[in-house]
Order: sequence, then structure tokens, then C-alpha cells
Amino acid sequence: MTVSSSSPLRIDAPLVEWILVGFLREEVASAGLSRAVLGLSGGIDSAVACALAARAFGPEHVLALCMPYRSSDPGSERDARAVASALGVRCDVVDITPQVDAYFARFPDADSLRRGNKMARERMSILYDRSAEFRGLVIGTSNKTELLLGYGTLFGDMASAINPLGDLYKTQIFQLARHLGLPESVVGKAPSADLWEGQTDEAEMGFTYEAVDRLLWDLVERRFSEAELAVAGHDPAFVARVRRMIAKSQFKRRMPLIAKLSDRTINADFRYPRDWGT
Amino acid sequence: MTVSSSSPLRIDAPLVEWILVGFLREEVASAGLSRAVLGLSGGIDSAVACALAARAFGPEHVLALCMPYRSSDPGSERDARAVASALGVRCDVVDITPQVDAYFARFPDADSLRRGNKMARERMSILYDRSAEFRGLVIGTSNKTELLLGYGTLFGDMASAINPLGDLYKTQIFQLARHLGLPESVVGKAPSADLWEGQTDEAEMGFTYEAVDRLLWDLVERRFSEAELAVAGHDPAFVARVRRMIAKSQFKRRMPLIAKLSDRTINADFRYPRDWGT
Repeated sequence: MTVSSSSPLRIDAPLVEWILVGFLREEVASAGLSRAVLGLSGGIDSAVACALAARAFGPEHVLALCMPYRSSDPGSERDARAVASALGVRCDVVDITPQVDAYFARFPDADSLRRGNKMARERMSILYDRSAEFRGLVIGTSNKTELLLGYGTLFGDMASAINPLGDLYKTQIFQLARHLGLPESVVGKAPSADLWEGQTDEAEMGFTYEAVDRLLWDLVERRFSEAELAVAGHDPAFVARVRRMIAKSQFKRRMPLIAKLSDRTINADFRYPRDWGT
Repeated sequence: MTVSSSSPLRIDAPLVEWILVGFLREEVASAGLSRAVLGLSGGIDSAVACALAARAFGPEHVLALCMPYRSSDPGSERDARAVASALGVRCDVVDITPQVDAYFARFPDADSLRRGNKMARERMSILYDRSAEFRGLVIGTSNKTELLLGYGTLFGDMASAINPLGDLYKTQIFQLARHLGLPESVVGKAPSADLWEGQTDEAEMGFTYEAVDRLLWDLVERRFSEAELAVAGHDPAFVARVRRMIAKSQFKRRMPLIAKLSDRTINADFRYPRDWGT
């Protein structure tokens, strides 16, 4: 995926790398730690996060977990291993099939959405478990496009301690990946949640990352009005659909809502930064 | 557990019930739903949440899940069933042993903290899976005392869609439970996370809920200074310890931190209420 040199989505990749490596170092240090744990799916987002973590902490202080299910594409594990090996990071493979199948034995008719969400939460749970043993922070790998569209599992892949990628659109992740020199097998392939054979994000969503990122830029970053969006050439039906996706998934980007009874309700009046105590 | 009639922790239980039943109805309706799913541990918090949900939606629109592990006290399941039966709510028992043991087969030396956290996240994951099938919202059951002290599992029992109990201290939960007429077997027993035989919260934490709630009231609600806390009779060492617990667990009460790169970062500049889109 490429964006033209005049696109507003164009990033200064060396500067972004420098900011994000600093972010990782500072935030992990503020938690009193010096290591990171993350899931490596074989996709581009987790590969970029892993490369940044390897630069921030040194590859020997990063633990990557590849957590395939029996229906996962074997190519995903191969790509994950290639990334870890290129970066010199330890990659443990943890098959999640036994746990997931043990649960769904009771629900043989569960659809792929339920199965995919259960798998995403199982992976989160394993990352947190291993992070306790490894004494590292769990690094999130959700990009801004999928966070805004709600294309992820709440308390699953959207859960982490800190996320270096959450303010980068997918097309910007590609630029950063090329700058970081990640393997072409990872950078060149179609993004996929790998829930079934041949799945691709773009086919499932029905639009390309390039088109939606251009719209999100005008909608979210530039705060264009309907009229301005139309002038910029965005299809009104597509605008309405994306607007709805953003609004409908807002609950995934906020903490659980607490019923207010006191003058100092958590996350309402009682609200401090995440690293307030450190 | 009782608080004296002059204690500031004393609640107007009928009023609190009315507010919380309204909260549940409004928030679930705003998500386009009319049902609730929650975990029933056999403890007092989930019993209170279940009673409120039964009043808000009608018992037939509430699904309670009791999710024991093989080492759980059989009395917990008995108490959970008694609560569900008293309220007329359907209670499904889902044994989490197969999934949890399938995972820890690789880590036979994992300590009870790792096991307890994995179990809490497995339960969350099951609640969310069943909520999709039942078309209900996942109701949180964490009270204000444990939220402030960080006495819970991030992305485990602390995860939910909405939480009616998060602004009530544990001693206030007891008052509400008695008002709601919950079974004495649940209201009268010592609070426990039921992670090992004979565990009680108060023995594990080393202080009583009554003592810590009195301190939290002065510390959080009244924002007393160190001098005022001393005058109010709080032991400075206890104050320091509780302050540290609150500050150190702040990360559990906030969303994952996103590295800031743009002018509209999620949860920084791009921040809307949880039900913004509905």
C-alpha cells in the first residue's frame, strides 16, 4: 500500500519512529519495568510494534507470542517467525486450540464472530499471563483506522497497557513498516484478521484502507462538514456508513460506565492520568 | 457488616435502588437492548447486581452465569443458585476447569495469582460470548472499594459494559443487599475471591472493609489533608499504604494509553461519552 507524496497521510517515518521508541521507553520505565510482551500475528501492525519494541528495549527484552488456532493460516505463523527472527526477538508459539475448543464443545453452532471474539480474548489473557512471568508490559497493536471503525474485539486485541500505534492510520503503518525494513512477506500481503481461509479486511469491510483513511482524515483530523466532505469528493453514502461505524463503536474506546451516586465517581470526578501513581 | 446510623457511609437504600434500576434500564435501552448478562459468584456484589437487573428488566430477561473452577468452594455455587432461584433468574453453570487447565498444563508451576487472573479473564470472555448469544449487555459487579484499591483483574472481573455498583463502597453494598432482601447465606458470609480454600478478602488485605471504607470516605470523598486524616484518627501508616494502593492501581481504571502523534488522538482530543453514537 502506498500513499502519494502529496497525501496528508504521508508521515515523516524517521521522526515517528523516534517519537514512538521514546514513548515505549518512557511509559514502560514509568511502570518500573524494562521489558515488553506482545502478540505477533504475522500481520503488519504487530510486526511494526515488535520492531519498535526491539529498538526501545533491545530484542532480548521483548517476548513475542504467536498464538494460532487450528484454522489459522500456517503462513501467518511463518510470517510471525520471520519477523521475530529478523529482529532477533524470542518468539514463543502457543496454540490456543485446546482452550477454545474445550469451551465451544458446548456450543457447536457458535458462529465465526463468537469464535473470533473468544480467540481474541484468549490471546489477550495469555499475553497478560505471560507478561506477569516475563515482567514486561503488554504492548497494544491496534491502529487508528481499526480503533475508529471498531474493527477489533473489546477486551481482546483492543486491550493492552500502552499502544504505540493507536494514532497511526493503516496507510501510515505501511509507511512506517517500509522505513523499519520489515520483511516484504509481511508488508506486501493483504491485511487479514485470519479468522477463516482467504479472509481479508478490505473484502470483509467492503472498502479499501486507502479510501477509508482518506475519509477518516477529512472527517476526524480536519473535522470537515458534510458540505466540505462532498466538495472533497467523498461519497455521501460512504461517509454516512463510516460515521455510523465510528459512533456505534464508541463503547469500545471508553471505560465501563459507572452509575453515578457520589461526588467523586471513578472516571467522572475521580480521574487521573494512567501513570498518576508512578 | 453494619455501619452506625450516624456514619457518612450510611445510604438511603430505597433511593439508591431506584437510581440504579433506572440507570440499568436507560443504559441498556440506549444500546438498543433490553436484557442483561452477569456472573454470579455466590458473593454479595454479584447478588446485588443480579437483584437490580431482575427488577430493571424482569427476571426472565437476565442470564446469570456461575463459572466455578475445580478448586472453587462448592458453597459458592450453592449460594449463587440460591440467589438466582430467589430472584427467579436463569442460572447456567459453566465449569471453566477444562479451558484453564488446558492452558496451565504448559505452566505447572504458575502461582495462584497467575491462575486467579487467568480465571477472571476466562469468566469475562465467557460473559461476553454468552451476551452476544443472549443479546444482553454485560453488567459489571465491581464495587468502589475494590476499584479504588485495585483489588480485581484488569480485563477480567473489572471489565463490563456498565457497572451499577462502582460508586458504592463495600459497606454500602451490604446495606443495599439487606434492603433488597437477599439470602442471609450470601449477606452474612465473609467476602472472598474464592481462589483457595478459606480465603477471605479481609485476611488477605490485612484490614477490614469497615476500616478501609471509613478511610476512603475521608480520603476520596472528603479530600482530607494528611493533618485532617490524623485528626480524624486514621493511622498514618495505614493512610500511606491505602494511598499507595490507589495510586499504583490507577492503570486499571483507565483505557490503554495511546502514543500521541496527531491533533485528534483517541481518548485525548477525540473523546466522547460511551453512548455518544446511540
